[in-house]
Amino acid sequence: MEPSRADAIPNPAVRRLSLYLRQLEAFRQHGRITISSRQLGQSVGSTDAQVRKDLAYFGQFGHPGIGYRVEELIAQVRRILGTDRTWNVLVAGAGNLGRALLAYRGFERKGFRLVAVFDSDPAKVGRKQGALTVQPMGELVATVRRDAIDLALLTVPASAAQEVTDCLVMAGIRGILNFAPVSIVAPRTVAVASLDVAVQLEQLSFQMNFARATRTAGA
Amino acid sequence: MEPSRADAIPNPAVRRLSLYLRQLEAFRQHGRITISSRQLGQSVGSTDAQVRKDLAYFGQFGHPGIGYRVEELIAQVRRILGTDRTWNVLVAGAGNLGRALLAYRGFERKGFRLVAVFDSDPAKVGRKQGALTVQPMGELVATVRRDAIDLALLTVPASAAQEVTDCLVMAGIRGILNFAPVSIVAPRTVAVASLDVAVQLEQLSFQMNFARATRTAGA
Repeated sequence: MEPSRADAIPNPAVRRLSLYLRQLEAFRQHGRITISSRQLGQSVGSTDAQVRKDLAYFGQFGHPGIGYRVEELIAQVRRILGTDRTWNVLVAGAGNLGRALLAYRGFERKGFRLVAVFDSDPAKVGRKQGALTVQPMGELVATVRRDAIDLALLTVPASAAQEVTDCLVMAGIRGILNFAPVSIVAPRTVAVASLDVAVQLEQLSFQMNFARATRTAGA
Repeated sequence: MEPSRADAIPNPAVRRLSLYLRQLEAFRQHGRITISSRQLGQSVGSTDAQVRKDLAYFGQFGHPGIGYRVEELIAQVRRILGTDRTWNVLVAGAGNLGRALLAYRGFERKGFRLVAVFDSDPAKVGRKQGALTVQPMGELVATVRRDAIDLALLTVPASAAQEVTDCLVMAGIRGILNFAPVSIVAPRTVAVASLDVAVQLEQLSFQMNFARATRTAGA
């Protein structure tokens, strides 16, 4: 079965694939060999129908009378997500957040290897961050090419985000995860996602606010 | 006009409110007094129809022949999101990520004041993190009550996430932003959101995998 076109697949379905993958890895760690769509759905607070619908965009993975084989489904979801290979990733911005991300050990086994870190501040260039040395922005193009880097974590201040984005795009980066609290513009050929902590906090605040308002209204 | 019930409002609409707010604040900074739904939509890569539909869940904010008054709409969106007040926030976990979040200066003007940090590691307790001192978990209940803390940033390792979540819930925390790469379970009265960097990277990886069919989506 041919996979659907990416633009025909709803973003929430792709997001749930990541959540299924986390749970499948946890099930594998606990020694599970097979799992039903109902169990997988429950583990992420969803339903068997949702699991089957999400996976159906990409093919037929269940086995009649068995359910899903955990190891097999992990491999298939990783293939769909593109993490059956390892992506080389750079960190643009060696501030607190950049350093926290470099110190996190969990990316590599998920398919993302942090291989370089850049900063425009001469005081930071040359410093060691774990196994890496902070490089000047001037080395971006050469390093991206040499190390075949596809992805960038953008951890610069908001005021520098667009300028550094433009540099990343020119250097050939194909995907940017933006941590700066500002929208960035990139060509359509570059995948962009944003991770703004304050936005997430506002979503929580909204829920808490509404819970209060609803209670006050006696609803 | 009565606002809709929270559960009748799609999450993406609430998420877009945060994005509109960021853009409105940028427009204000550039001296704009009014803005059309088309301009606001364009600034987040969306349409005027989407802006009007999202705002219509909460009331009627435009002025005929004028559009939206920037200052007024900022106040109204903040009121909707519950950030017209300041929420006191604690950080659970004083590792690299916890420290990066504590060092970030941008939360307070968005309505979130980091007032306490906790860790279960005796080697970390008592250390200064900026203006705060790392407290032991045993002081959680008393501090949450004394400082009227509603929100928690959960930055502990995956293995400790559920146990610390249970402690936060018992202490009276009403909203948790989970950074640990694992699902946590909390009562329905507690709002939970997750922010998993690897999940975001997988979404980018998926798009890059399907690169030719992919539109570059903002987030």
